[in-house]
Amino acid sequence: YSTQPIQKVTLIPGDGIGLEISESVKKVFAAAKVPIEWETVVVDANTGISKEVAESIRKNKIGLKGPISTPIGTGHQSLNLGLRKTFGLYANVRPCLSIPGHKTRYDDVNTVVIRENTEGEYSGIENMPVKGVAQSIKIITKEASTRIANYAFQYALANGRKKVTCIHKANIMKQSDGLFVKSCREVATRYPTVKYEELTIDNNCMQLVLNPAQLDVMVLPNLYGDIVSDLCAGLIGGLGLTPSGNIGENGTAIFEAVHGTAPDIAGQNKANPTALLLSGIMMLRHLGLNTHANKIESAVLTTLGEGKIMTGDMGGKSSCTDYTDELCRKIQNAN
Amino acid sequence: YSTQPIQKVTLIPGDGIGLEISESVKKVFAAAKVPIEWETVVVDANTGISKEVAESIRKNKIGLKGPISTPIGTGHQSLNLGLRKTFGLYANVRPCLSIPGHKTRYDDVNTVVIRENTEGEYSGIENMPVKGVAQSIKIITKEASTRIANYAFQYALANGRKKVTCIHKANIMKQSDGLFVKSCREVATRYPTVKYEELTIDNNCMQLVLNPAQLDVMVLPNLYGDIVSDLCAGLIGGLGLTPSGNIGENGTAIFEAVHGTAPDIAGQNKANPTALLLSGIMMLRHLGLNTHANKIESAVLTTLGEGKIMTGDMGGKSSCTDYTDELCRKIQNAN
Ligand SMILES: CC(C)[C@H](C(=O)O)[C@@H](O)C(=O)O
Ligand SMILES: CC(C)[C@H](C(=O)O)[C@@H](O)C(=O)O
Repeated sequence: YSTQPIQKVTLIPGDGIGLEISESVKKVFAAAKVPIEWETVVVDANTGISKEVAESIRKNKIGLKGPISTPIGTGHQSLNLGLRKTFGLYANVRPCLSIPGHKTRYDDVNTVVIRENTEGEYSGIENMPVKGVAQSIKIITKEASTRIANYAFQYALANGRKKVTCIHKANIMKQSDGLFVKSCREVATRYPTVKYEELTIDNNCMQLVLNPAQLDVMVLPNLYGDIVSDLCAGLIGGLGLTPSGNIGENGTAIFEAVHGTAPDIAGQNKANPTALLLSGIMMLRHLGLNTHANKIESAVLTTLGEGKIMTGDMGGKSSCTDYTDELCRKIQNAN
Repeated sequence: YSTQPIQKVTLIPGDGIGLEISESVKKVFAAAKVPIEWETVVVDANTGISKEVAESIRKNKIGLKGPISTPIGTGHQSLNLGLRKTFGLYANVRPCLSIPGHKTRYDDVNTVVIRENTEGEYSGIENMPVKGVAQSIKIITKEASTRIANYAFQYALANGRKKVTCIHKANIMKQSDGLFVKSCREVATRYPTVKYEELTIDNNCMQLVLNPAQLDVMVLPNLYGDIVSDLCAGLIGGLGLTPSGNIGENGTAIFEAVHGTAPDIAGQNKANPTALLLSGIMMLRHLGLNTHANKIESAVLTTLGEGKIMTGDMGGKSSCTDYTDELCRKIQNAN
């Protein structure tokens, strides 16, 4: 007889394999008796971000989202980006952890990318002053840089992380990346218990492939964050295995699988729901539902580690529902 | 009794370990009886690019260069970049090949980065219109994009390469990277025997760490080229093992080791001359001195593969002169 109102969560299945992997998450969360209620809304190339969707997210302040495809051709902004912008989700958080038992070339990856989500090369300001000459403007502000740096250090403290590394190319973009670095340095002085370092983006990518264990939390302007998060995902097996969260000012957050809609295998029960499941687990922790998060995470990691039930992208032959059913079985046995 | 005049080569040793590794190259080239004459000039933070240096390069049209350190603080442009700009060296070519016997996590890397060297994020156009707001302008022109795309396809043909992949983020920078992609596509139609593909920069970095053998020749705007070339270097063991060439319009070219000056070990006979040696070998091929190039390359690769004589950066204890002497011995035995 709890008096706690049930937490509603906006679910945006997306399209392509988004539909199947969302079903998987719903089943697994039900098996774990997660005390949330899904409010499913549609976002796709036809609907865009409708009033209904905006209201649902404003009210619930929390969302889980599958991949959404963007129509090819100019003039269309990615809806994935649109959602981040509309709700002021300024911090993109992408942890990357080697999955025990799942063999890649690296077994000691444990990094978190904290990507500035609102400005930089993603300003959208571009023009063509003369035929054959295009310019794009990268905007870096002290406000957004300080905000993301603060987020990174707060994240480090809350998660027992030891080091924050600021990634930049301030030797070339002295003003824009220079401002980013300066802001990070200033914030760093307020967190004396967390180590602070700086690396140029080129060197960072080299160090990550040479020895990823050197890197802990990284804080980056938008585009470098985009690049480095994919690189890190590659180190542990790809975007199908990595969660992502977009966090906003007033606690609003949308967690999302950042892989594509995979139209080639959509509707064939072949998709791997791991990235969306892990994103859902991040979301549960954000909501303070740690027991449920741990229970589901343990089932996912054990199953991946056993390597018996694996979808095609991981080199196996199992279906999305085989994998989902196995997770539900493990969770129910642990209940 | 040759009537061929001896080719003069401008040698810029640089500073820090640049001095030692340049000595190593001179010894090894002498052992291989390379028919060139060195014209050594100084470029450092005090001299900048002097008139004497500029004249030497304009006359010889060919240079080999060690690392040059850039004084820290704003207002100083990197001399490494200064040289590329002064002589219009528009193509930065960085092959990355796994070194047989030298163990890294990857053993099948065989890529070439063709980086646009003159524009993009390196335009140097930046300002701070309002306190706390910085902007940097990325410039992409059809002319420079077409020129580098042409270079990439010509390179592919000349070197028996099968595929050119254009790397971009045109889904975000629709105008600037869009123009780069469009230019590459147009050029690609003129080379029907070379396969042409496109990848976004984030996906490219992920694919490189997942499976580098997928990539062959890559053509990239300036900053992506900077990032991806370091990433590729990391796959085969680091910047100490990778050559680089900067090629200009009228055949002018400067080959350079792109690692740092390593002030911590400078003057201690610990430096690894491999990157400068491999850059020198690229230079010899550029000059048509293939027999000499092959002879030196074979000594370098055999020695690295044996793994008996290795400098500290490779996990060994040998000195720069140990390694140099071993190369000379191998070359003399083969003569
Ligand atoms: C789809 C694309 C616009 C997006 C981005 O660049 O942010 C994606 O790469 C990501 O990382 O979520
Ligand atoms: C030293 C630096 C300015 C330079 C660059 O950014 O091009 C270096 O990283 C390189 O790749 O040669």
